Amino acid sequence: MNVVTAIDSMKGSLSSIEANQIVTKVFSEQGHLVKAIAIADGGEGTVAAVIKNGDGEKIPAEVHALDGQIVTVEFGWFRTEKIAVIESAAASGIQYLDGTLATHPLNTSTYGTGELILAALNQGAKTIIIGLGGTGTIDGGIGLLSALGVEFFDQDNQLLSAKGSNVAAIDHFSVEHLDSRLANTSFYSASDVTSPLLGENGAVYMFGQQKGVAENELAQYENGMKHYQEKVCGTRPSVAGDGAAGGLGFAIRVFLKGVVQSGFAFISEQTNLEEAIRTADLVITGEGKMDNQSLQGKVPIGIGRIAKKYKVPVVAFVGSFTGDQQLFREEGISVIVPMVDRITTLEEAMNNAESNLANAARRTVQLLTLMEKSLT
Amino acid sequence: MNVVTAIDSMKGSLSSIEANQIVTKVFSEQGHLVKAIAIADGGEGTVAAVIKNGDGEKIPAEVHALDGQIVTVEFGWFRTEKIAVIESAAASGIQYLDGTLATHPLNTSTYGTGELILAALNQGAKTIIIGLGGTGTIDGGIGLLSALGVEFFDQDNQLLSAKGSNVAAIDHFSVEHLDSRLANTSFYSASDVTSPLLGENGAVYMFGQQKGVAENELAQYENGMKHYQEKVCGTRPSVAGDGAAGGLGFAIRVFLKGVVQSGFAFISEQTNLEEAIRTADLVITGEGKMDNQSLQGKVPIGIGRIAKKYKVPVVAFVGSFTGDQQLFREEGISVIVPMVDRITTLEEAMNNAESNLANAARRTVQLLTLMEKSLT
Repeated sequence: MNVVTAIDSMKGSLSSIEANQIVTKVFSEQGHLVKAIAIADGGEGTVAAVIKNGDGEKIPAEVHALDGQIVTVEFGWFRTEKIAVIESAAASGIQYLDGTLATHPLNTSTYGTGELILAALNQGAKTIIIGLGGTGTIDGGIGLLSALGVEFFDQDNQLLSAKGSNVAAIDHFSVEHLDSRLANTSFYSASDVTSPLLGENGAVYMFGQQKGVAENELAQYENGMKHYQEKVCGTRPSVAGDGAAGGLGFAIRVFLKGVVQSGFAFISEQTNLEEAIRTADLVITGEGKMDNQSLQGKVPIGIGRIAKKYKVPVVAFVGSFTGDQQLFREEGISVIVPMVDRITTLEEAMNNAESNLANAARRTVQLLTLMEKSLT
Repeated sequence: MNVVTAIDSMKGSLSSIEANQIVTKVFSEQGHLVKAIAIADGGEGTVAAVIKNGDGEKIPAEVHALDGQIVTVEFGWFRTEKIAVIESAAASGIQYLDGTLATHPLNTSTYGTGELILAALNQGAKTIIIGLGGTGTIDGGIGLLSALGVEFFDQDNQLLSAKGSNVAAIDHFSVEHLDSRLANTSFYSASDVTSPLLGENGAVYMFGQQKGVAENELAQYENGMKHYQEKVCGTRPSVAGDGAAGGLGFAIRVFLKGVVQSGFAFISEQTNLEEAIRTADLVITGEGKMDNQSLQGKVPIGIGRIAKKYKVPVVAFVGSFTGDQQLFREEGISVIVPMVDRITTLEEAMNNAESNLANAARRTVQLLTLMEKSLT
C-alpha cells in the first residue's frame, strides 16, 4: 500500500525526521511504499524538517547567542525560491540557559536571531520564514530589532542595549537606520504558540518561569513589557502569537509586517501534504503525549482532518494516550497505537523510544495485513 | 469473522473468563462472531472455567479448610458424564494463610480436599479431576488420603493426625479402610506444575517459603518428606508433577492411580479447542506477563501451536511483553499486542486491566479491518 508518514517530534526522544525514518523502515521492509513528511512547529528542528522535505541547503552563520557568546548556527536556504528559514531557537534557544545571571532573561537578547536575518538578506533572501519557539529570551524582540537597525533610547536619549530588562526603560525609538532591504522582504513567522504579549497567557507569565524568571520577578517584568507595548503600539492590543518566543512574535508582526502562520500550515503548504494524503492508502502520524488537549489543533489532528476529507485511514503512534478515542476518531484519527509495551517509567520509555516505535510499527503493519494474508 | 478467544488468567487482575468476556464484547460490537474458551491451569478458577466451558453445575460442600475451620466450597459437576472437577485450592488454598502458626504448613492439611472427593463420590462421580495448584499446604497429600480412609501410624502404632509435620513421623500405614468406591473411580490430576516431590525444584524447596516455611526449616521439612516418600515407594523415584500442591500430586498418583494431565491439555480436550481453532478466522489469546519463559509451554504457546497447524492467525494480548517477537511468531503467535497504553506502574496497570484490555481489543479489531473498510 501507499503510506504517508508525518509524525510530529516526540520531545526529548525522537525528532519528526527520526520517527518517520523508523516507521518508513518497518513499512518498507513489508513491501509498502512510504513517503515521509517531516513535521515542525517553528521550534527546534524546524530548519532540519524543511530542508528534509524540500531541496534546501543549510547555510552556516556566525552570530551572538542569547548571552553574547559567538556561536555558529545554520539557517535553511532555498536558492531557487530565495526563501530563508530561520529558527529563533538556533541563536536564542533555551539550550544556552545555564542558570547563571548571565543567561537570566533580563540579561539576554534575541540579537543573534536578528543577525541570522541579516545573513539571510546577504544571501539574497526575498522571503524569510522565522520559526518561533524554544527561545530562552523574553526581550520583546528588541534584540532582533536592534540587529536590524532599530534604535531604542531611554528618557535621557541614551541608546539602550538590547536585553530583556531594557524593555522597561524605553522612552522612544527610531527606525531611521533600519536595514533598507527589509522593505522588499516578506516575513512570515511560523508558530503554534497563540499567546498574546501580555497577561496570564503571555510571554512573561506563561513562559517566564521555565526560562529562569523567579516568581517574585514576574510582576515587574510584566510591567516592563506592558510599558514596551504601549511605547510601540499605544493602546492597540497585542494579538495571538505576539507572545511567542518571548515577544519575538510581537516584534516581527509590528516592525517587519510579518504574517503569522501556524507551523503546521507552513509545513503543510511546503510539502503538498494534502495532495500526498489524498493519494495515500494509509496515513501514519503521532506525537509524544496525546490527550484531549491535542484536539486543540496539534499536528495529528491537522493530519487527521485532511485525511478525513479524503476518507484515508490514519494510525497515530503515541508515547502516551489518555484521551477519549471517539473524539479523535471524529477528527479522522482511526486508530491510536501506544508505543509502550510494558510497565515502564517515563525515563525508560524515552530512552527506548526508537525500539518502542519500531515495535509498535511492526505490530501495526502485521495487524493491518493479518487477515488479508490468512485469506491467501 | 469467526473469532475464538482463549485468554489465560492474568494473575491478580483478570480471570480467564473475565478477559474473554471483555474481548468478546468488543469484537461482537464490531459484528464478529466470537466463541470464548475459558482457560485454567488446575489452580484457582479451574472449576469456574470448566463449568463455563461445559454444561456443568456447581455443587456446594461443607469441608475443613487447611487449618481445620469449616468452610463451604464448591466443586464442578457434570451430571450426564458423572464427572466431578475439584480444585485443591478450594479447601486447601493459600487464601487461608494468615501468617499465624495455625496456618504454617507444618500444621495444615489437605483433609478438606479429600472431603470434596467424598462429596463427589456421594454425588455419584465416576471420574474425578483434581486441579492442582494454589494450595497453602505441604503435607504430601496425607490429609487427602486420611479423609479417604488411609491410616498413617507412628512407630508406637499410634494413629497420626494428618498434618504437614507428621509426614516425618510415619512408620507404617494401612489402606484397609480406604473408601471402597475409589476402586471404581478414575482420577486425573490437572496441573501445569512439573516439580518432583523432592529436591530443589520440589514441594518443599521450590514452594515452601511462599507458603510460610522459614528458610532454616526447609532442610528438616525436606528430610521428613523424603522419609515419607521412602515409606510409600521405597527406592522408586518420584516423577514430574508429584511436587504439585505440596505433594498432593504424589498422593493422587500413587494411592489413587491418578493420571497426570497438563491443565491446558485437560481444558483443550474438554472444549474441543483444536476443532474450534481449526474453523476460526482468528484466534485471540493472552497472558499477564509474556517473556521468553512463556515459550516453555504456557497457554498462549499451546494455542499458538494448534493455530499454526491450521494456519489461523493468532493475536496475543499481554500485560507486559519483554521477549523476542520472532520466537513467538515461530510458535504461531502472529502479533503480540501490549495492553498498556501509557507510562504506568504495575499497580495502576493491574487496577485498569479491564479498560486496558478493552482498549487494546478495540485498537486491534480496528487495525485488523482498517484497510478492508477503506477499500469499500
